[in-house]
This record gives sequence, C-alpha cells and structure tokens, in this order.
Amino acid sequence: MAASVSTQSLGQPLGDDQRFGLSRHVVLPGPLRLDGGGLLSPVEIGYETYGTLNADGSNAILICHALTGDQHVASPHPRTGKPGWWTRLVGEGKPIDPARHFIICSNVIGSCMGSSGPATIDPSTAEPWAMRFPVITIRDMVRAQAMLLDHLGVGQLKAVVGGSMGGMQAINWAATFPERVRACVMVASTARHSAQNIAFHEVGRQAIMADPKWRSGAYYESNDPPAAGLAVARMAAHITYLSEAGLTEKFGRRLQARPDRPDGAKSFGFDADFQVESYLRHQGLSFVDRFDANSYLYITRALDYFDLAEEHGGLLANAFRGTATRFCIVSFDTDWLYPTSESRSVVQALNAAGAAASFVELSSPYGHDAFLLEAPEMNRVIDGFLRAES
Amino acid sequence: MAASVSTQSLGQPLGDDQRFGLSRHVVLPGPLRLDGGGLLSPVEIGYETYGTLNADGSNAILICHALTGDQHVASPHPRTGKPGWWTRLVGEGKPIDPARHFIICSNVIGSCMGSSGPATIDPSTAEPWAMRFPVITIRDMVRAQAMLLDHLGVGQLKAVVGGSMGGMQAINWAATFPERVRACVMVASTARHSAQNIAFHEVGRQAIMADPKWRSGAYYESNDPPAAGLAVARMAAHITYLSEAGLTEKFGRRLQARPDRPDGAKSFGFDADFQVESYLRHQGLSFVDRFDANSYLYITRALDYFDLAEEHGGLLANAFRGTATRFCIVSFDTDWLYPTSESRSVVQALNAAGAAASFVELSSPYGHDAFLLEAPEMNRVIDGFLRAES
Repeated sequence: MAASVSTQSLGQPLGDDQRFGLSRHVVLPGPLRLDGGGLLSPVEIGYETYGTLNADGSNAILICHALTGDQHVASPHPRTGKPGWWTRLVGEGKPIDPARHFIICSNVIGSCMGSSGPATIDPSTAEPWAMRFPVITIRDMVRAQAMLLDHLGVGQLKAVVGGSMGGMQAINWAATFPERVRACVMVASTARHSAQNIAFHEVGRQAIMADPKWRSGAYYESNDPPAAGLAVARMAAHITYLSEAGLTEKFGRRLQARPDRPDGAKSFGFDADFQVESYLRHQGLSFVDRFDANSYLYITRALDYFDLAEEHGGLLANAFRGTATRFCIVSFDTDWLYPTSESRSVVQALNAAGAAASFVELSSPYGHDAFLLEAPEMNRVIDGFLRAES
Repeated sequence: MAASVSTQSLGQPLGDDQRFGLSRHVVLPGPLRLDGGGLLSPVEIGYETYGTLNADGSNAILICHALTGDQHVASPHPRTGKPGWWTRLVGEGKPIDPARHFIICSNVIGSCMGSSGPATIDPSTAEPWAMRFPVITIRDMVRAQAMLLDHLGVGQLKAVVGGSMGGMQAINWAATFPERVRACVMVASTARHSAQNIAFHEVGRQAIMADPKWRSGAYYESNDPPAAGLAVARMAAHITYLSEAGLTEKFGRRLQARPDRPDGAKSFGFDADFQVESYLRHQGLSFVDRFDANSYLYITRALDYFDLAEEHGGLLANAFRGTATRFCIVSFDTDWLYPTSESRSVVQALNAAGAAASFVELSSPYGHDAFLLEAPEMNRVIDGFLRAES
C-alpha cells in the first residue's frame, strides 16, 4: 500500500494508470456493498492527490465534489483546460495547501471522470453499464472513497471538506466513519433533499429521458448522446445555483448586442434576445461536452435519496451521537437551493448530540454558487477551523 | 353592435359561432397593429360573457387570464370538463357576480382556445400560422381585447381584473386605455419580467424546441405534437408556481404508495418514487392534452418582453400620470415568481403619479398559485374595492 502513496506537485500529477490523461485512476477489486442491496465489482476510481502524506499520516484532507464536479480540484481539467474548480480554497498559500496537507479528491462513483458509472465497462458483458448500473447513494460514494483511502494508506483524515453535494458527502463521512474523520467542513449544503430540490431534479431527468437520443440510456455505441435533453436539464439546474438578485445584477433585462445594434434590440422572434437567455444556452451547451447524461440521472437520484436522518433511525442527532469529530458548517444568505435553515437543522442536531460545531452564515449576492467564487470570509473561516485542531 | 351583447346564464353560453364548443367566438377584420411592427388580420377571439350589460353600460368587468388560462373563468372547460378557473372569485354571490356585473373573459391572442395564435389558420396560406405567427406582446393582447369590447358595445370598464399574466394585462389596460378603465385589480403580478422569470421561460422554450417533434413549429399536420418537450416545460414552470414550504407541506419526502408497499419504498431505479415526482409528471402530462406547444412559446415570449416602464419612456410612473383609474394591488407573501417587492414597485409608481392605489400583501402558504386557490381575504379585498366606487 505504502508504495501507492506517491507525491506530486500541482500540475504534475502522476497516475497509477494514465488512461485518463493527467488524472490518476485505480481499479479496486471490491466488492462494494451498496445501499440498494447490490454489489459493485470492480470499483474504478479516478482521483487526484496534491502534497505529501506526512510521517504520522496526520495531514490528509479529503475534498468532496459537487454534482457535476470532478477530482480536478486544484489542477486543470483535462478536457476543458480550465483551472481546478476550487483553486480559491485549495493551493499554495490557501487554507488547504499542498505544502502542509496531503490532499485527495476523487471522482464520485456514478460520475463520468474515471470512476465507476453508467459509462464504464461492465466486465460481465464487456459493454458500458448504461442503465444497468446500480442506483447508488451518497453513502455509497463515501464508502468508495473509504476504499480509496485504504488503497492510499490513509487511515484517518485530518478533515473532510465539501460544498453542495460535496458537503453531503462530508457530513455522511462523519456519520458513517466517525473514527476516521477528525474534522468535517460542510459548505452550502443540507442533510437531506427537500421536495423542491427533488422537483427540480425530476425536471432535469425528464428532460434527458424525453430526448429520443437517450434510447433508454443505450446511446454510447451511437456516439450520439442526448445532448439537447442534458442541456435543458443543466439550464434548469443552473437557475437554482444563482440568486434572483445575482441574476438581476449580472443580467437584468439587458439585451444581447447584435452586429447591427451594439446596445441590443428585441428580435420579435425566438433568438436569445436577453443576455440571460444567451448565458443559459451557453451553460447548457458547454455542459454536454464534459458530462455524461446517464451520470446526471444517477447522481441526481443519489442526491434526491439523501436523507441522513433516515439512515440513523429518523433522528438526525443519532448520526452524531458520541462523535469526537469537530464540525464547521457554512451557509450563504442568498442560497435558495440549500438555504441557511437547512444548515441550522444540522447544527441543531450536532448540538443535540453534544458534538463540537461551529456555524456561520456568510453574506453573498451570488446564491448557491457563492461557495465556488471568491469568498475571503469563507477562506478565513475554514483556515481558522483547520488550524484550530490541537 | 348592440345585437351582439347577448346575455347568458352560467353554464349556458351562447356563441356568435359554435365552432369552439360552448365558447363564443368572433372573427374581427382588424387589422391589429402589433408592437413588433406587423399587422394581424383577421383577429379571431374566443371569449365568454356572464351576466347582462346594464342600461348605462356601467357594469362591465373584464377578467384577464394567466399564461395557460382561457376564457372559461366561471364555466366548465369544454375539453377537460373542469370548473372555471376562478369560480372562487367569479360567480353567483361572489365579488364578481353575473347578477350584478357583465363579465367578459377572452382568450389572449397567441393562445390556443379560439383566439388567433400559431395554431389558427393564416388566410393567406390556408394553413396554420405555426412559427410565421407574429411575436406579440402583452399590450397587443390588450389591444385585441379592446377590439372585442368595441364589438360587444362596451365603452368603459367598471374594472379590469387579473392575476399573474392577467394582472400584467390589467395594469397594461390602465396604462394604454386609461379613459376606458375606472378600476384596475392586479393580483400576484409584476410590471416587468425579471432575469430569473426570463430564465425559467427560456428553459421551457428550449425544452420544446429540443423535442424533434417540434419540427420548427410545423407539427400540426402530423398530429404528433412535441408533447414530451411541452411536458418538461410545464414541469419546470410549475415549480415556480408553488412555494418551497407549500411543496414541503404537501409532499415533503413522502414516497409513492405501491401495490406491495402501501407506505411506499425507494425503487432504487428511476420510477417516480417520491410523491412530488409523480405529481409533477402528472402536471406535465395532463397539460399537453389541453395546450399548444407553439402557443406556449409565443405567450412566454410576450411575458418576457413585458416591461411597462419601457413602454412609457423608462419610468413606470409615466404610465399612470394623470390617470383617474383606481388601483388595487394584491400580492402573496410566499409568491417567489412575482414577489411582493414587484407589487411594491408598482404601488410606488402609482403613488408617484398621484393615482388612487390600495395595496395589500396577503399571507398564504401556497406561493404564486395562491391567487387561484381559496383566498377569503383576497375576495374581501376585491369585493370591498369594487363596491367602493362612488
């Protein structure tokens, strides 16, 4: 095991397997027992690490990604070339720093960036799993991450950190493997999906499944995926990531500039007249180049199934009873996808369980997306929390 | 003209033309000059009336319907058989009462219940207009209604009343034809569409246009409309009609009952496990039976284009300068589609213009949809306002 804990500097990842470009990739035999009752074997995991595990193995931090995120938390995305998705928090001189920490980020199972999901090959048929891939849960994602940590020789985490769906994994880590997590940071997240959350995801799933190119999920051979349906799903979801005020500030009712009309003009047609229309269309179109439609179905399903209380006898406090893990919960005041009231419920449960918990609601105009944007206050809170460990 | 002002009792409408079942229908020569620059001719209007115009013509009330509404405000829908959509407010013993008022409700142009829209026949080609139908605005809808009033011999309205898009028409009536409107009631509405409003509609339009059955709008001959795309559009919009708290109260995370599991169970598949999923799917599917996909494109476009201030030099107060119309503005505290802040902007403009305006925010758990549901307070407010006329 020790041999696989290799160090790497930012931008120079070394892979167990180079199939996924710059990303590291491992095939673990499993089986992974799933909440749905099935077994997944093998378990493929795409991941990245930054920094070096120290001698006493006490500096490992696991970062968990959001719905459409990936393992490229602090290094460029191999397909889009864009910088890592959380370089504002993770990197040299940042609160999570490869000079001090051994940072691990893995693609969740169900996704499409190297970890087992509907697009990977089912060895029993030598074809992509497609919709025969088992429905998975947030806890299943966490269990797969635990298998990766075993493989990497990381026993205990200094911290598990995540925003949005990453926050759900972080809190689930603390509940499922309390002895392996010294600290848990949950940002812009919730301990369960609400009816409205489920409703928005159902719209996205129906948009994908209504696309004739979806073909009940068997579109891999055709190389002609349900891009139109997936783009609509992304557009609907994207609205929930932004605040009403943020949208107004960014776009208002401003019109798209046109070659003949620099200030824009209504077309009295169905072009993207408004800047917000053009922006949303771009969000939808650029998403389909980097994401698999079936993965979108599976991961939204995992999110909708998520209810941490249900996993612990219906009472959220039970999930944390007797825990030694320290918790840091952060919400944003304009986040209407996972509003502050959801974080407050988690904090109340932590308090009821006698857990050490700090909670802060930050102010931002940017809604749910705030956790991915420049947020100096969030950095200060997380830096202080991580350094406070005795 | 007088001959066409026929009386009818509830449930027994008499039509100029019986083509549209129980609904009345008239073909006016026009032309109607449109905001987009074109001319619409002829102008077909499907409408209903209830009660009798009194001798001095002072008891006419025009009711304006919402995006997917119709003229059947107080009598059963001819296709679905469902009761009129505002029988809680309109009917015997209600604030708007055929025993006292001559009530008119017409299908907006652009729609699909008897008024000119993409599904009606373009006489120049003898085929449905489809996407050659001109893009229309809320003010165009209002101008068509004014032509209908001319036809019916109604000079001045005692009141124009509407909720949601109906409220936009009501306020536009007061701004466009101030001398024809003694009182204006705008419920759960706005004087302009926000970036977030536009964004949700753009998702719906893209869902329709992504459906291969849409065929650039030319699906009428095939009799195979883009039902899947339209259903997704309806599902996305429907979420915005309900409050988060209302969804939680109505559905929470409750599971669908199954034959073998009366309390429901997760399928670990992609069935509608949650009641909210099943409800949304039903909303989408039942909608496509009664609505035309192209009409949905045209009416959402008219809504997105709506900005009453823009029609009056960029200052909303200009729309009401010197008006003698009395205004009653009603909002609901959990309406996040057209939140109270939008109503407040209208009231501020009315005050700035010196108009007589009353404003009330009502409390309801039901979000935007509250105006269509049992709302005794709303009835009291509207009843008092309509009776107060000297």
